[in-house]
Amino acid sequence: MASADAMSPKITVELLRQLRQAMKNSKYITEPIQAYIVPSGDAHQSEYIAPCDCRREFICGFNGSAGTAIVTEQHAALWTDGRYFLQASQQMDTNWTLMKMGLKETPSQEDWLISVLPENSRVGVDPWIIAADQWKNMWKALSGAGHSLVAVQDNLIDAIWEDRPPRPSTKLIALGLKYTGLTWQDKVTALRGKMAERRISWFVVTALDEIAWLFNLRGSDIQYNPVFFAYAIIGISSIKLFVDSKRLLEPAVREHLELDSPSKPDLTVHCFPYESVYTELQAVCAALAPKEKIWICDKASCALTQVIPKAHRSAIPYTPLCLAKAVKNPTEIQGMKMAHIKDAVALCELFAWLEKEIPKGTVTEISVADKAEELRSQQKDFVGLSFPTISSVGPNGAIIHYRPLPETNRTLSLNEVYLIDSGAQYLDGTTDVTRTMHFGTPSDYEKECFTYVLKGHIAVSAAVFPSGTKGHLLDSFARASLWDAGLDYLHGTGHGVGCFLNVHEGPCGISYKTFADEPLEAGMIVSDEPGYYEDGSFGIRLENVVLVIPAKTKYNYRNRGSLTFEPLTLVPIQLKMINTELLTQKERDWVNDYHRKCRETIGAELERQGRKVALDWLIRETEPIV
Amino acid sequence: MASADAMSPKITVELLRQLRQAMKNSKYITEPIQAYIVPSGDAHQSEYIAPCDCRREFICGFNGSAGTAIVTEQHAALWTDGRYFLQASQQMDTNWTLMKMGLKETPSQEDWLISVLPENSRVGVDPWIIAADQWKNMWKALSGAGHSLVAVQDNLIDAIWEDRPPRPSTKLIALGLKYTGLTWQDKVTALRGKMAERRISWFVVTALDEIAWLFNLRGSDIQYNPVFFAYAIIGISSIKLFVDSKRLLEPAVREHLELDSPSKPDLTVHCFPYESVYTELQAVCAALAPKEKIWICDKASCALTQVIPKAHRSAIPYTPLCLAKAVKNPTEIQGMKMAHIKDAVALCELFAWLEKEIPKGTVTEISVADKAEELRSQQKDFVGLSFPTISSVGPNGAIIHYRPLPETNRTLSLNEVYLIDSGAQYLDGTTDVTRTMHFGTPSDYEKECFTYVLKGHIAVSAAVFPSGTKGHLLDSFARASLWDAGLDYLHGTGHGVGCFLNVHEGPCGISYKTFADEPLEAGMIVSDEPGYYEDGSFGIRLENVVLVIPAKTKYNYRNRGSLTFEPLTLVPIQLKMINTELLTQKERDWVNDYHRKCRETIGAELERQGRKVALDWLIRETEPIV
Repeated sequence: MASADAMSPKITVELLRQLRQAMKNSKYITEPIQAYIVPSGDAHQSEYIAPCDCRREFICGFNGSAGTAIVTEQHAALWTDGRYFLQASQQMDTNWTLMKMGLKETPSQEDWLISVLPENSRVGVDPWIIAADQWKNMWKALSGAGHSLVAVQDNLIDAIWEDRPPRPSTKLIALGLKYTGLTWQDKVTALRGKMAERRISWFVVTALDEIAWLFNLRGSDIQYNPVFFAYAIIGISSIKLFVDSKRLLEPAVREHLELDSPSKPDLTVHCFPYESVYTELQAVCAALAPKEKIWICDKASCALTQVIPKAHRSAIPYTPLCLAKAVKNPTEIQGMKMAHIKDAVALCELFAWLEKEIPKGTVTEISVADKAEELRSQQKDFVGLSFPTISSVGPNGAIIHYRPLPETNRTLSLNEVYLIDSGAQYLDGTTDVTRTMHFGTPSDYEKECFTYVLKGHIAVSAAVFPSGTKGHLLDSFARASLWDAGLDYLHGTGHGVGCFLNVHEGPCGISYKTFADEPLEAGMIVSDEPGYYEDGSFGIRLENVVLVIPAKTKYNYRNRGSLTFEPLTLVPIQLKMINTELLTQKERDWVNDYHRKCRETIGAELERQGRKVALDWLIRETEPIV
Repeated sequence: MASADAMSPKITVELLRQLRQAMKNSKYITEPIQAYIVPSGDAHQSEYIAPCDCRREFICGFNGSAGTAIVTEQHAALWTDGRYFLQASQQMDTNWTLMKMGLKETPSQEDWLISVLPENSRVGVDPWIIAADQWKNMWKALSGAGHSLVAVQDNLIDAIWEDRPPRPSTKLIALGLKYTGLTWQDKVTALRGKMAERRISWFVVTALDEIAWLFNLRGSDIQYNPVFFAYAIIGISSIKLFVDSKRLLEPAVREHLELDSPSKPDLTVHCFPYESVYTELQAVCAALAPKEKIWICDKASCALTQVIPKAHRSAIPYTPLCLAKAVKNPTEIQGMKMAHIKDAVALCELFAWLEKEIPKGTVTEISVADKAEELRSQQKDFVGLSFPTISSVGPNGAIIHYRPLPETNRTLSLNEVYLIDSGAQYLDGTTDVTRTMHFGTPSDYEKECFTYVLKGHIAVSAAVFPSGTKGHLLDSFARASLWDAGLDYLHGTGHGVGCFLNVHEGPCGISYKTFADEPLEAGMIVSDEPGYYEDGSFGIRLENVVLVIPAKTKYNYRNRGSLTFEPLTLVPIQLKMINTELLTQKERDWVNDYHRKCRETIGAELERQGRKVALDWLIRETEPIV
């Protein structure tokens, strides 16, 4: 996604001049605004966004995944976090001030605005791009200081963006029962059951992965995420889908949605243009009876949220679809298992190839990433990558969100640790796996750190915990061995993973940072990825995708039942990196059990695919340890 | 504290009639109110309260530590939690409806009020008893439904309470440097430093333990808590103390506070009657310059909070005194160590005595509690108990907040598990210790459960973690072994402990429930008390008070430093209850190390005090395990 000249600053003098004119232009606003906020999201609060939504990058040049730009008549400033300080400072010209979030001296956006604005200023923002909860906080702070926050309906960046790419409208794929396990009609019916329980009349669906999951449809509007731009409004007896109508011409899609011959009136999909969601929601609200309620996620756009009168609005942190989607059904679980087997085949092939190629001195971070994609694409039902591959050698491995670029690209050698964090989308599932390897002789210190990370990985993977436990209560298990040695890592331990959907999804995860996560349930799928990063030297991370399953325990306190994890990722953990003396017998048993499973399951598939070299590599790498 | 007839219901017909009359009496309110809320706290939001503040008990009969009564023209209802369902139902007559908090079908106080009140009702509450944050929530809910929440300045319970006990005004003790390590003048100066940092002009101190700590004074107004009724308002150059003036006649107190010859004008204590805090705070507020700010805890009373105009108010979740008090200085740490040595002497004596007495069949839960108090009272600087002793045999042990009453009192035997959770106040420190023992032969299951609890206790006690870690991140360590077997306990793992102050104090703790706790710091003191409770059979809990200390680690990631715990409690853990096969070598080493420390430290003191029988017991109970 990053362009080749990502590291030279974008010249923004003229753009800023145009934006500041737009801020005073009565074509867009009745009264001039003194500041304009450019958040980094799209109208669906997506983590990854389409090129047409990269407005913050357009105005300031910085293309990292997180950041907010604010332009006033005098100033232009960008807020981003520690991952991106260097990158942002290289990509922005001197018109911009970098606001380093997390540093004590850095003011919040609100405080900064209040400090630089003249009295009674008007601050504008596109209400489609800002989430309702963020709007509320900003509104409070500004109005407390005598300013006002103004919803500017026309996006002012779009107004000055001459060659703005069009909104993607890719071909839709209809997924059959074989992949989904549930028809979209059954999903709608289940959703309505939850709505009826809470006496909710309508539910406004704004998250793209929730819409894709609900209708068993996929698209490719956003790179790495098989979603498509749409909204849905689900009523107790009506379904409204908002999507570019051209996409519905495809016979397979028409048939899937029963557009031409609906089976039941309350399961008839009424299609509307993507843009008409606002007016349709207004119409829905106008027809509400006094006590009727509408569900909307509190992270939905301010624009749509505010259409719903407060008395009718029920804002929820996680929607019922987010929760339903997180608990995978047996078909989805089977699909995720198949996807992980195929993915492991590609990685075994890759690692066997690396062993032969690295000594030649021609393998680079980028060429491994390309090779990995090539090998994955040979697997059945491959669709694409699930996120940009992190392929990093030596010191680059210590940059947690590293992506190899031509100017940083290092050659793999026998002397440095290599970390690869990669994954793919298959029609039957999504993968995300990290392995850390050494192709020469690792140092004692590298092995020691790797082993602590492995101990943390096992502690989570083998943990048994009561049903109803939230993932954040498991986070410290992953760190205990590192902590004992005075080490740690500064990221969470795991995130939810979609099934042929987004590689990061809510509402569950394993992190010290979030306490608003939902309890883990059997059928949920999360990653388990502790790490250790030695700045300037090497990075270690060990990531499996794991499935939450019921655990058999000796006792069953208050009949609550217990849970544990089953690894879906079945790729060997490099034995050479382990200091086995640091492992307990239980941990050694876990490693041997895991490798036995890798050998059996992946070995059979490698055999079936006739991949002899990779099979030999697998067998050697899964020898039991003592 | 519980009266002997605690389990027969209080007859409340006449009281309710009187209260309902008061709710319409223009002597107290300008317009009648349709409901009156009686919370259980005092004006300082104390956990333990004085008899004169037991208003909720007075009106409904229920004397548990948590509960809120609400009386309307037609109804009377009491909300309490699962610990107290049985007790509340036994103590209240049929005029009262028990609202079981935590059950799905139980409405919240707000929802219930809205469902039973006529339109536009007025709900009254004493603004001194309700905390500002609770007032805010109740106010929002009621005004959203068209009702109003009214601050009734005269407490209506006091108005009908004929023989209400007077507010205690016990003798104050001035603590010298030998106990406190810091003069009150130095504490005030340090506090002013923090106020200056945040540009705060005044700080209103409402928590009784904060006032006691700040002025190095103690009282005995509330049982178990060495505090006294007072307020303080600390300015950048002025000190206002609000306390019953009779208490300041004592020469030692006058000298301690330098009342007759203040050394410096800004360290002069200006004394006011306890009741005049309201008018004095009004005077302070009236004299404020436009940008001046006043600190007040968001848990302070609504009455005092609302005196401060919003523009001048800075409400904080933890006050700087709460934080300063939590980090014990070297003198306090030394005092806490001494207190724990004396406490251990008393307990060794008790347990040696129990071994001889139990076979006679005359020892009961109550008699052990009395004996423990007697033995503690023989120790130097003993002041009283730090909380009501939990002394429980067999099934009573499974009731987590059990206190022996004549009608529940069981005899100790050789066949049942015995749990004692007790502690004392000494001039030099506060103790809180739980031991679980069997004086005959424990069953394999009892030993197994005990050993899991021990493993959890050790996992926390021996944990090494980075500076800045919050206590809740350690909670799962205490549970992992129980979880593995399908077991758990339904309470937190630890709470902060004061130094000759409240046995429960903020802002730190170890619990899955709180995420608003402050990070652990060297010098903080918390309890480590996992348990297991088998309903109807037995209870197990193992509690030490532990001190947070710096840990030496092999590495020091980002120079953050590491922390661990040092047990202050030095009482043997009964070896007979341990299934040593379930312990790892590290855990066996921990037990042996701990017992070696108990033998050395407590043995020396037993020897010094000439307590031969207890010494023999200690030596036998601290034999190394293999």
